[in-house]
Amino acid sequence: MPNPSDLLMLRDKLRAFAEARDWDQFHSPKNLSMALMVEVAELMEHFQWLSEAQSANIGGKVKPAVAEELADILLYLVRLADKLDVDLLEAALHKLEKNAAKYPAEQVRGSAKKYSDY
Amino acid sequence: MPNPSDLLMLRDKLRAFAEARDWDQFHSPKNLSMALMVEVAELMEHFQWLSEAQSANIGGKVKPAVAEELADILLYLVRLADKLDVDLLEAALHKLEKNAAKYPAEQVRGSAKKYSDY
Amino acid sequence: MPNPSDLLMLRDKLRAFAEARDWDQFHSPKNLSMALMVEVAELMEHFQWLSEAQSANIGGKVKPAVAEELADILLYLVRLADKLDVDLLEAALHKLEKNAAKYPAEQVRGSAKKYSDY
Amino acid sequence: MPNPSDLLMLRDKLRAFAEARDWDQFHSPKNLSMALMVEVAELMEHFQWLSEAQSANIGGKVKPAVAEELADILLYLVRLADKLDVDLLEAALHKLEKNAAKYPAEQVRGSAKKYSDY
Repeated sequence: MPNPSDLLMLRDKLRAFAEARDWDQFHSPKNLSMALMVEVAELMEHFQWLSEAQSANIGGKVKPAVAEELADILLYLVRLADKLDVDLLEAALHKLEKNAAKYPAEQVRGSAKKYSDY
Repeated sequence: MPNPSDLLMLRDKLRAFAEARDWDQFHSPKNLSMALMVEVAELMEHFQWLSEAQSANIGGKVKPAVAEELADILLYLVRLADKLDVDLLEAALHKLEKNAAKYPAEQVRGSAKKYSDY
Repeated sequence: MPNPSDLLMLRDKLRAFAEARDWDQFHSPKNLSMALMVEVAELMEHFQWLSEAQSANIGGKVKPAVAEELADILLYLVRLADKLDVDLLEAALHKLEKNAAKYPAEQVRGSAKKYSDY
Repeated sequence: MPNPSDLLMLRDKLRAFAEARDWDQFHSPKNLSMALMVEVAELMEHFQWLSEAQSANIGGKVKPAVAEELADILLYLVRLADKLDVDLLEAALHKLEKNAAKYPAEQVRGSAKKYSDY
């Protein structure tokens, strides 16, 4: 029977990966947050000199490179959440509800106030 | 029937959320990568002056604050992958296989060469 | 006689500041690099939803807030360089020469190849 | 007569550099803030798996690589401040005074409250 949760499946695979290599010792939340940041920067580097429109139309060799950076980010994020004993899915669903209450669609639609404070 | 995939469920919720608020116009990959970075920095800020050991033992008010940052990161990551038309789970599983081949357990175990190049 | 170098003057002020507060113990290069990163993210946050053109025309309350973030970045950068015993000005001048050799004006002008690899 | 200010000298050199290559068009504050971030991440990458003590004792090939990242950060910072018409030195001195008022030495010394809120 397949694992019903993507995120828990990845968590378990990453646990096994680190254990097999005795890498748990390096995986403090402090270090993992730095590694996560470095991966996000490697992703952002692809977009830094592109226009917004260009960033929405990458292709060629950039597309798979970007996909790999997204994967690295997810893997470190799942690992970090695991070391902090945080249920990522539960936290994300909770935050979505909070955001829905904070930005009621009927009020922010069109005005997009969140994005136009400047 | 519930969506069998956490990540696809979050993707669909985020799509509906942005559509209901007409926020899609702000969600270029370039902008989303910046927003993702800002969230990771807000997470890292909790750890910057802590020792590695302290970072593994947060509690009190810090724990829920950190969980919320992890949620923000996952939400922006899922949204960004969607806008780039990347299947996050597939990309992550592919990267895990690549890492397994790059760091064979029997060779790196103990030496942890990846972490001791300096 | 005033110190002839901005960067050395700032370095000396920061040394005295940390010493008077006994904060040197927190200022490992690892920690300072995280603090530097957090400040850059706080700067970037001002620009994340702006168009490029908007980012070049900030004003009102945003301008002094951005100036303060730039100051924070410079202060942590100077402090970090000091802890690593790196002469910032010398390193910057050296890098400028390296860049001039790497991107000869007559070759890259117009084509701006560095920015159009994608 | 040499320019009495390191930062203004670097600013002028960077202006000439960009002009000679027609790169001004790419240097929106939004883009430059991303480039700055990417350089800070490249610096942080050197420290991510090191202990704090190790980060204070880098040597060999790492030292010049770290010096070059610090240079890149300073160069992008100076360029960004110029495009935003911010006087970096003035902003830094102003922030130092603000910090001195916020953290009186006699009160924070020893307790280092700023660093022990968690």
